[in-house]
Amino acid sequence: MKASIPKGTRDFSPEQVVKRNYIFNTLKRVFVKYGYQPIETPTMENLSTLTGKYGEEGDQLLFKVLNNGDFLSKADKQALEAKDSAKLVSSISKRGLRYDLTVPFARYVVMHQNDISFPFKRYQIQPVWRADRPQKGRYQEFYQCDVDVVGSNALMYEAELVQIFDEVFAALKLNTCIKINNRKILEGMAEVAGIKDQFMIMTIAIDKLDKIGLDGVKDILRKKEIAETSIQKIEELLLVTDLASLKVLFAETEIGKKGIEELEAFHSYFDLGQCTNEVKFDITLARGLSYYTGCIIEVAAKDYEIGSIGGGGRYDDLTGNFGLKGVSGVGVSFGAARIFDVMEALDLFPATASEQLTVLLVAFDDTTHHYAFKCLSALRAAGINSELYPSPTKLKKQMKYANDRNVAYTIVIGSEEMEQELLSLKDMTSGEQKQLSLAAIIKQIKTSTEANA
Amino acid sequence: MKASIPKGTRDFSPEQVVKRNYIFNTLKRVFVKYGYQPIETPTMENLSTLTGKYGEEGDQLLFKVLNNGDFLSKADKQALEAKDSAKLVSSISKRGLRYDLTVPFARYVVMHQNDISFPFKRYQIQPVWRADRPQKGRYQEFYQCDVDVVGSNALMYEAELVQIFDEVFAALKLNTCIKINNRKILEGMAEVAGIKDQFMIMTIAIDKLDKIGLDGVKDILRKKEIAETSIQKIEELLLVTDLASLKVLFAETEIGKKGIEELEAFHSYFDLGQCTNEVKFDITLARGLSYYTGCIIEVAAKDYEIGSIGGGGRYDDLTGNFGLKGVSGVGVSFGAARIFDVMEALDLFPATASEQLTVLLVAFDDTTHHYAFKCLSALRAAGINSELYPSPTKLKKQMKYANDRNVAYTIVIGSEEMEQELLSLKDMTSGEQKQLSLAAIIKQIKTSTEANA
Repeated sequence: MKASIPKGTRDFSPEQVVKRNYIFNTLKRVFVKYGYQPIETPTMENLSTLTGKYGEEGDQLLFKVLNNGDFLSKADKQALEAKDSAKLVSSISKRGLRYDLTVPFARYVVMHQNDISFPFKRYQIQPVWRADRPQKGRYQEFYQCDVDVVGSNALMYEAELVQIFDEVFAALKLNTCIKINNRKILEGMAEVAGIKDQFMIMTIAIDKLDKIGLDGVKDILRKKEIAETSIQKIEELLLVTDLASLKVLFAETEIGKKGIEELEAFHSYFDLGQCTNEVKFDITLARGLSYYTGCIIEVAAKDYEIGSIGGGGRYDDLTGNFGLKGVSGVGVSFGAARIFDVMEALDLFPATASEQLTVLLVAFDDTTHHYAFKCLSALRAAGINSELYPSPTKLKKQMKYANDRNVAYTIVIGSEEMEQELLSLKDMTSGEQKQLSLAAIIKQIKTSTEANA
Repeated sequence: MKASIPKGTRDFSPEQVVKRNYIFNTLKRVFVKYGYQPIETPTMENLSTLTGKYGEEGDQLLFKVLNNGDFLSKADKQALEAKDSAKLVSSISKRGLRYDLTVPFARYVVMHQNDISFPFKRYQIQPVWRADRPQKGRYQEFYQCDVDVVGSNALMYEAELVQIFDEVFAALKLNTCIKINNRKILEGMAEVAGIKDQFMIMTIAIDKLDKIGLDGVKDILRKKEIAETSIQKIEELLLVTDLASLKVLFAETEIGKKGIEELEAFHSYFDLGQCTNEVKFDITLARGLSYYTGCIIEVAAKDYEIGSIGGGGRYDDLTGNFGLKGVSGVGVSFGAARIFDVMEALDLFPATASEQLTVLLVAFDDTTHHYAFKCLSALRAAGINSELYPSPTKLKKQMKYANDRNVAYTIVIGSEEMEQELLSLKDMTSGEQKQLSLAAIIKQIKTSTEANA
């Protein structure tokens, strides 16, 4: 039997897990500092929780889990006879795999509303599954990293979430542009252009601006039979770069003015001077998702072309689907896989991770091997990541393993070293070799690893 | 629509995630120090990888994922007509959810054998899924924590893994007894008792000793038609407590002597004097799994009755199923859920976790709220987990939130405090209140949280 995994899934090697954890640990450290708390939801949700939440295409991309036991005994007979797969599903499958973190979060808030102290600030880093056609860089299992606060309208949180973006990307040394807009400004745009009823059509078109350019957007609007005067007005507004000019153009739209007001409230909290990344108002930022109602945010890497690596916004009704009305919130997501790819491409991962093996001990016979094992215990008791090659075999073979594991040091222990209690420490980067006592070795390694940390 | 989750699954609240991460982080820190590397495997494996590996009962407990799209078009027609669920499965489902971490690990080793430098020391902490009937304390989704080394016969690793058990449980302040035995000693027992061919029957019976007592074990053996003289011999051997006595009784069994030799080799590395937990030879330790061939290990909590909270052993053939012969290894698992329950019952979780919110800022009007937000940024820049109540509402409401979040401090900022730049710091444990500058507050909180860490 050949060892294989399903198409669209992947194994993570130690190197990949360590790098990914470097990103996750940075995110978690910042989230916690800002008062966000972790939750986890089950991999399987009831299909009734998931179905209908992601549009028709989304429903088709849900992974469905077959009911256990004699599932055919309760199967829909008509669907079975008609060989109608779509119709049969609900009678043979009750559960599906999590498709995103937003719907499970909404479900969680409603189920646990009596135990939650609002505003509820939560983060969640878990994999999700989508039955997309597998292709390069697109997997059927991938992590999402969401951070949201629900149960408050305060615009302070928009400022806080942009600070989180700024702090995370500063920590990762990833140079970004954080773009801010407000759905109410886009609504004002539609009103000023006289196409209030075609708001979502306009928004979805503008969302494509980066990919298809202004002419492309205008083409879409024309195809949707929007009047040339309206298109001209939209074009004029899309060229606005500051709120002062926008105020003049928005004199007649209440919703538009409310959008400007919200952005001003955001700036009353947010201190641009304390930012590491570029933060700017971008009236062309639209974001396609229909549930946003206020501030919207999107992050792009500056030194590498890869599309958005983070984004989010405010929504007015997270939990309505589950019967709890009026829960407003704001949240952002980090695109972990793209962040990983950018950091890999720009060589931003630190060379030494605290998860890495620091020392390999090398011995040459049974006696020195047992002696080396005692030295190993002392190194570990001092908190140094270390191991002993399992058998006192040829030096060459042991040094190959040291190289494969990319250790910083080897300690070679022959019978002479053992007798004199002076071990041979080799710095694998410089090649330098020294005879030192075990205590001196521990001191030196601890000093140099702490300097690197 | 009512918010609910499937039976047998559960949400993890912030408090639960923080506590569980305390266990996981302790495990990871120790694993890494001992040179083990993390891997992750996909949630879904090919059903062909999983089926037949866990016995007939295991096969029935696998969660199977329905093929996407028009799955009925390729369904087995005969099985469909006969309404034979069991026979139909393989034609409508190609994938299943991971049932344990051992089979995926074996599959990983074979798939990536050319990239792996042996001995391969890996750890893996991921959830697994089993369609067991849900009941109190038993879930269909739960974490496994496995640590293994493959590609070496060295008995040094048995010593290392017992050191890991000892160090983890010492760090968790969980008092345990770590029992050691060797399958070859059980084989010797069967040989001496003249029932070499009934080795697994004997082993499975002895494995139940804790639950059913010696008489229960003898009853089982009698029912399996094992001779009374053999049962007497087994009883005599089960009362042995030291290797010296065993040597006498094992004079005539080569495999038994080999078992003693292996335990002696283990002790030549392992230093009992450096242990925090009790480590002892226990000839009655059997472990039911058939794939163990050498050393076996099991851990029980001393101050709480809950069964085994960890265990493992050496196996000779991990990857044979996937066509790679002769890969020996040794590994242990930590029972994370039971460890959580024991620690909860014995109140062993530390009162303050680094993931916890330390400070809540409280303001009374729009001006002080904005001022408080600047103070908040300074606290966070100093690395203090903190947040500001989102609106300058009634003190009582804000203090209720501070209590719900279990913060260590509140900082109250009225207009007087703002003007004098002396903020009101309240220690929520002692109730003590002080007027201090922001810099002094930061200094005090950092000193006291570092003292607690």
